[in-house]
Amino acid sequence: MIVKISPRGSLDQLSQLEVERLRQGAKSDLYQLYRNCSLAVLASGLISDSSEELFTRYESFNINILQRERGIQIELINPPMQAFVDGEIIVGIQEHLFAVLRDIIYISNKYENLKHIDFTNANHITNVVFDILRNAQAISPMKDPNVVVCWGGHSINPVEYQYTRDVGYQLGLRGLDICTGCGPGAMEGPMKGATIGHAKQRVHNARYIGLTEPSIIAAEPPNQIVNELVILPDIEKRLEAFVRLGHGIVIFPGGAGTAEELLYFLGILLHQDNRDTPYPLVLTGPSESTEYFTEIDAFIGATLGKEAQCKYQIIIDDPVKVGQIMKQGMSEVKTFRKNKGDAYQYQWSLKIEPEFQLPFDPTHEVMANLNLYFQDNKAELAANLRKAFSGIVAGNVKSDTIKLIQQHGRFNIQGDIELMRIMDNLLTAFVKQQRMKLPGSAYEPCYNIIKN
Amino acid sequence: MIVKISPRGSLDQLSQLEVERLRQGAKSDLYQLYRNCSLAVLASGLISDSSEELFTRYESFNINILQRERGIQIELINPPMQAFVDGEIIVGIQEHLFAVLRDIIYISNKYENLKHIDFTNANHITNVVFDILRNAQAISPMKDPNVVVCWGGHSINPVEYQYTRDVGYQLGLRGLDICTGCGPGAMEGPMKGATIGHAKQRVHNARYIGLTEPSIIAAEPPNQIVNELVILPDIEKRLEAFVRLGHGIVIFPGGAGTAEELLYFLGILLHQDNRDTPYPLVLTGPSESTEYFTEIDAFIGATLGKEAQCKYQIIIDDPVKVGQIMKQGMSEVKTFRKNKGDAYQYQWSLKIEPEFQLPFDPTHEVMANLNLYFQDNKAELAANLRKAFSGIVAGNVKSDTIKLIQQHGRFNIQGDIELMRIMDNLLTAFVKQQRMKLPGSAYEPCYNIIKN
Amino acid sequence: MIVKISPRGSLDQLSQLEVERLRQGAKSDLYQLYRNCSLAVLASGLISDSSEELFTRYESFNINILQRERGIQIELINPPMQAFVDGEIIVGIQEHLFAVLRDIIYISNKYENLKHIDFTNANHITNVVFDILRNAQAISPMKDPNVVVCWGGHSINPVEYQYTRDVGYQLGLRGLDICTGCGPGAMEGPMKGATIGHAKQRVHNARYIGLTEPSIIAAEPPNQIVNELVILPDIEKRLEAFVRLGHGIVIFPGGAGTAEELLYFLGILLHQDNRDTPYPLVLTGPSESTEYFTEIDAFIGATLGKEAQCKYQIIIDDPVKVGQIMKQGMSEVKTFRKNKGDAYQYQWSLKIEPEFQLPFDPTHEVMANLNLYFQDNKAELAANLRKAFSGIVAGNVKSDTIKLIQQHGRFNIQGDIELMRIMDNLLTAFVKQQRMKLPGSAYEPCYNIIKN
Amino acid sequence: MIVKISPRGSLDQLSQLEVERLRQGAKSDLYQLYRNCSLAVLASGLISDSSEELFTRYESFNINILQRERGIQIELINPPMQAFVDGEIIVGIQEHLFAVLRDIIYISNKYENLKHIDFTNANHITNVVFDILRNAQAISPMKDPNVVVCWGGHSINPVEYQYTRDVGYQLGLRGLDICTGCGPGAMEGPMKGATIGHAKQRVHNARYIGLTEPSIIAAEPPNQIVNELVILPDIEKRLEAFVRLGHGIVIFPGGAGTAEELLYFLGILLHQDNRDTPYPLVLTGPSESTEYFTEIDAFIGATLGKEAQCKYQIIIDDPVKVGQIMKQGMSEVKTFRKNKGDAYQYQWSLKIEPEFQLPFDPTHEVMANLNLYFQDNKAELAANLRKAFSGIVAGNVKSDTIKLIQQHGRFNIQGDIELMRIMDNLLTAFVKQQRMKLPGSAYEPCYNIIKN
Repeated sequence: MIVKISPRGSLDQLSQLEVERLRQGAKSDLYQLYRNCSLAVLASGLISDSSEELFTRYESFNINILQRERGIQIELINPPMQAFVDGEIIVGIQEHLFAVLRDIIYISNKYENLKHIDFTNANHITNVVFDILRNAQAISPMKDPNVVVCWGGHSINPVEYQYTRDVGYQLGLRGLDICTGCGPGAMEGPMKGATIGHAKQRVHNARYIGLTEPSIIAAEPPNQIVNELVILPDIEKRLEAFVRLGHGIVIFPGGAGTAEELLYFLGILLHQDNRDTPYPLVLTGPSESTEYFTEIDAFIGATLGKEAQCKYQIIIDDPVKVGQIMKQGMSEVKTFRKNKGDAYQYQWSLKIEPEFQLPFDPTHEVMANLNLYFQDNKAELAANLRKAFSGIVAGNVKSDTIKLIQQHGRFNIQGDIELMRIMDNLLTAFVKQQRMKLPGSAYEPCYNIIKN
Repeated sequence: MIVKISPRGSLDQLSQLEVERLRQGAKSDLYQLYRNCSLAVLASGLISDSSEELFTRYESFNINILQRERGIQIELINPPMQAFVDGEIIVGIQEHLFAVLRDIIYISNKYENLKHIDFTNANHITNVVFDILRNAQAISPMKDPNVVVCWGGHSINPVEYQYTRDVGYQLGLRGLDICTGCGPGAMEGPMKGATIGHAKQRVHNARYIGLTEPSIIAAEPPNQIVNELVILPDIEKRLEAFVRLGHGIVIFPGGAGTAEELLYFLGILLHQDNRDTPYPLVLTGPSESTEYFTEIDAFIGATLGKEAQCKYQIIIDDPVKVGQIMKQGMSEVKTFRKNKGDAYQYQWSLKIEPEFQLPFDPTHEVMANLNLYFQDNKAELAANLRKAFSGIVAGNVKSDTIKLIQQHGRFNIQGDIELMRIMDNLLTAFVKQQRMKLPGSAYEPCYNIIKN
Repeated sequence: MIVKISPRGSLDQLSQLEVERLRQGAKSDLYQLYRNCSLAVLASGLISDSSEELFTRYESFNINILQRERGIQIELINPPMQAFVDGEIIVGIQEHLFAVLRDIIYISNKYENLKHIDFTNANHITNVVFDILRNAQAISPMKDPNVVVCWGGHSINPVEYQYTRDVGYQLGLRGLDICTGCGPGAMEGPMKGATIGHAKQRVHNARYIGLTEPSIIAAEPPNQIVNELVILPDIEKRLEAFVRLGHGIVIFPGGAGTAEELLYFLGILLHQDNRDTPYPLVLTGPSESTEYFTEIDAFIGATLGKEAQCKYQIIIDDPVKVGQIMKQGMSEVKTFRKNKGDAYQYQWSLKIEPEFQLPFDPTHEVMANLNLYFQDNKAELAANLRKAFSGIVAGNVKSDTIKLIQQHGRFNIQGDIELMRIMDNLLTAFVKQQRMKLPGSAYEPCYNIIKN
Repeated sequence: MIVKISPRGSLDQLSQLEVERLRQGAKSDLYQLYRNCSLAVLASGLISDSSEELFTRYESFNINILQRERGIQIELINPPMQAFVDGEIIVGIQEHLFAVLRDIIYISNKYENLKHIDFTNANHITNVVFDILRNAQAISPMKDPNVVVCWGGHSINPVEYQYTRDVGYQLGLRGLDICTGCGPGAMEGPMKGATIGHAKQRVHNARYIGLTEPSIIAAEPPNQIVNELVILPDIEKRLEAFVRLGHGIVIFPGGAGTAEELLYFLGILLHQDNRDTPYPLVLTGPSESTEYFTEIDAFIGATLGKEAQCKYQIIIDDPVKVGQIMKQGMSEVKTFRKNKGDAYQYQWSLKIEPEFQLPFDPTHEVMANLNLYFQDNKAELAANLRKAFSGIVAGNVKSDTIKLIQQHGRFNIQGDIELMRIMDNLLTAFVKQQRMKLPGSAYEPCYNIIKN
């Protein structure tokens, strides 16, 4: 089956050189990257979190760029059928296809090759992230601060899912925009809820921002409500995009990925330079999830301490209150930025240390040598804990890391015995609560916690 | 509490004469009508289907029109608080308030007084309905036929409600617009579902049309997704608006009101002049509702016969198919209208007999004398059956008729014994399935079926 | 030649009744009115100010309304060819055609018949004018006061014409909207100039309002820059529309019509109740026109006195200053309306006496009996002088009055000898300066000034 | 005087790195370039074609970029006052200021430094031109071919100027967009005329494209009707942008610059590969300019021959016909591109040889050694003649070249004697007709034609 798709969204014209680059035979890395991201976008809605499975299933899928008198067209060969309604591609997916093209081309044009972006200059990295967002037209100048980042698991139960919708609805009723990792579960629920809230408030320019990256997109394909999809080059730039673009953060129940995000963000907030930066942060879920938050809170308390705990509020079963806290937080953020002359749309002034910016590549060696000991510099401890969870996420869903585990066995994670105990408890709870994998599939851990 | 609301939607300027008319003391009928409709709109979201209860609860509510340099403002005194989010009125409700003002003023300006519209000229009535819709900007010239009217109960169970959302979602994915009676239940679900479908398809100009009338609005307050609210003068003009504005009809499970609508529509479709008019009609519900449709179908078969049954398809538990049938039906409708030169936006050529147009005022005498006997002219039988159900609806929810019942006892409905038996069965089933009232309240019938 | 024209602008749907009314045979008055106004609109650009000539030349012109699936279409039979560019109708004319249809239908629908609008209640007339403007969507709620009414002759010389463009350019650079009588000459120049000014300032929603009436439209066909054309029922309602809609007035050189307008406006401004109403009024022209303004000013001084002279400023050859005065005047107007709670878009509070509102029908008897004597009540004197000039305009360009003159000879205008002398001087100057007729045609006066 | 200007148009966000680059002290070349182009834009409307004069007069002018919470602002110190109306900057100029910033930053970001763009790969140059236009959002995908490029002198007499307006008006009436070199005279007239035509046709998205380059912008500051201003890096890229972006070309009377443009374009059209490419080309002027075109035509005939003469039509005093030819030409262009699959918005398939692409830097040596002999390869002869005229233009208006002439005396231009005679005749005619400089200033030639 062959389908031709016309442009939609922020890209419609490519130069001949750009088209050529993506044509250079099915063997080029860039083409493979482009093909795989496009496939992920088309697979949105498939219930699966295994990218391997996806790639195997659609082995015969191919994609070509054609030049036409009104600009380019994309030719899809054997695409997943659920991207279509009665033979017509869903417009949201059509937009996502061109967002993928735009970002892959832009990043490769400007920075030669995704793999070689390895700037060590913090300032340059921050500018690169800005550059990519701006090119994706995700830096919108006219709005006041109102982007709420929602983090949480792609695998959550129906009660939790409904709760994320309810929170999204309350955010939407307050005119707030939503930004998520753009997959299913807690990344989709708030957007659906907000859509209804926005409809009732006649908010026609609502933003549903999805930030993803090539290694995660296939495991967590963007839901189609996302109307601003951006593919960042790697997980660290994606995290930086979240915190500089967002004005408040809501964290729903999730697994290792959510823990990674929380640790990343707390690590930044705990930095000396960011102490006075207002940044509303709420951890929330239905009453059924109370235990989850008790555990997380205890973990944070035991590792990063009181100061870290003061950075967030835990709210159980009260979507209206979550909406109100976020709404009120926005005006504080606005005042702060205005006084500081910092942009509403991209928080330049937030200090992020290189250890949070440089790509973390989890190998067995690196994972075994993480510095997992209690220490006074809580920001640094957060950074190291973040890496531990990042490695676990990679072992769970990223195809390269999964292959590594298959070859060399589980990661060994070691450090202070008490710390290991606490981590093990948390991870065991995640497993028990089925937060590591989509329900139905048995979870096979990719790590050993060494507790002696 | 006093709040001032600025205009939004299709009305912002009133003449001094118009403002004066609605100011003339709280005792004028027009003012009362205006106040009550406004209250109903503000009460949207309250779980209740009793207008009496609403009026009692908000006895202290008042509304005034103020003239300002940029046009008018509405002043609300003691409005229901659920119309507000953190002290700000929900924009959907704001629009509805001005839709009420627009329609009340327009109808009273042009036709002097709602009560006196009693045209007996069918042609004139049809023009009046057009006039009101056009003034409400509900005659949109540029779109191809794509309005799906959804009928069904305001009191349905959660499974049925979710099903109406699923169908709405499939309609939305196909770019179809939704028109309902604009209350809760089956009047809300399809709109919510369609909102998500439209968001995924980036349909930004979707229409969520709500058609209501003064005596029903308080019992079934408009949901806020409705972005085109029109208040027709009476139930018959509202029904005519439905069938001339719509291009296809989906009927979900419901009670006496839904039966009334189905009979009304079949009565029109069975008219000699309308035989060749394509008008897709689907009766649908989840598998749990199979019995309901079996009963309805049997009732139609036993009364109006095979021909009537051929006018609809019953589809159980298949939202995608409902969406496909409606979508395909639209192109037939388009071709037919084009060939006939009939407007896409208002089906002038549909023949509607006066007995379907003239306001039916159910008194005990009138109800007792309905001609409920089998007859060859199926359209006429449909008209009479429609009246029977219309009376029951009025006895259930309209405050004037409820008072009548309280004074004089239940309506007596009589006619052919077999017909009475069939009707009784259907009504009893409605009662048993809790379709006459919102769940939780015991239903006290307003009628006796005389079966001897 | 037959052409079909699709709707554009604020009207696209008519009811069957409305279409029928305009179909009722070529002999109905309403149809004739409709046909003639449409012809005038199509004739825009023809250099002529004789409606007789126009009607004779296009005797075979006819117009029909067709009903189509997407609404109505207009069928033109033998239309003037200059309305077309390479066979396509100019879009501005297309809009005007539907504005004519809209206003004729609306006025006749609502007020039965143009001829019978003879309200004597001042308040009602003011509401009727509002009603017509609102229906034409000419009451735009969101803008601050910025409508500059430009009056002046349709027959002016090239230097004066260029000057009106220059003033329009300066008004446009200041974001001001233009409202004129919508014919050629001083009614067109300011719009053309403002178009360039607006383009440079990227003003995309500029209003070029043209107010006309059936008896004048053929002599002064609307220029196509007009993007809001409104046909008022008669000259007095048109004048009322000018002064209630506008926020400032610029008067360029002109003939009897311009004098009528100036007298009308001064008569209103001199009213006791309007004394404090700010309303910027500038009389302006190139240095070549200095004499013209000296004469006008002397005439006003001699008849209405100092107070009247204080109401305006005369500015010679300084378009920038005219622009600045108007711009500054707008903020005074805004403050005044805001304090008074009077609408920005329609000045309800301006007092207009019935003698300025009631249609003035110039017959020989009426013209002979005008009360043209000096008196203390300057507003009343202005009213009477206004009528004298109104009669002369009618005798010059309106076909009914021209016939009257042909039958019964010239109007006799009489009164105070000194006053007659002054009037005669002014009129003689107009004739000499070729302000009564388009240059090239000899002017044959329609009046005698009786000076003994 | 210090003024702060907020963004408007296609740029509102800069990264910190970009802002820093333009901040690096007033001595950086990039900053000087940026300052001078900004000054030129602000000077629009000043009657002068000497950039030296401009720079001297506004020596104290400075410009800074400020970072604010809503993005950047531009700070102007001592700007020319005619850029303001009553103290507010003209919005057209505001847009142009940000277009300058956008293009300077983009080109320098991407290509390091304007001075070093010296690609010798024809394909790369074509992609660079595309890139710059796309970044300026001047590649608009949805429109059919309709861009008419208008070339002609900045110094033309009032009759010719009015004629360019009349032609523009006819182009505007036909919905065609205008692209010029964006200075005064023949670069402004067609835009003004088209503005009126577009207003009558209600064309709201008309494009008035101005293409300029740093060394010419100060001598020919953009007029403010231009709503898409693009600064290309040099004269050759600007010419390439004209011919790839445009769909038809109209040439009005002009001087050496216009001759350069005509020779450039004929040189391309005469290329073997472009023989079948339809590209409507009209030379036109009022009857007063007949002689001018006779001379040009004779010159082309004598040098490039019949084939070249067949590429254009000369139309005297008939704006309607010019409009019709362009309009009809558009559909041929459309068909051709469609069949070839070439983009409507950028004619990739037009073959342009390197000698037309590589920057020509006129020094005394280079000018003296131009190969100005008759030859069979007419395209090559056209290229060389083009360079001769290009050098003369530079000597007339570009500040660097003017300095060169002041130092080393006039350019010597030599070659075939007959060819020199013909060229001298043409240039002498230009001088006599005052086409080399704005009227009023005596023209001092920057060249000697060596005729022996």
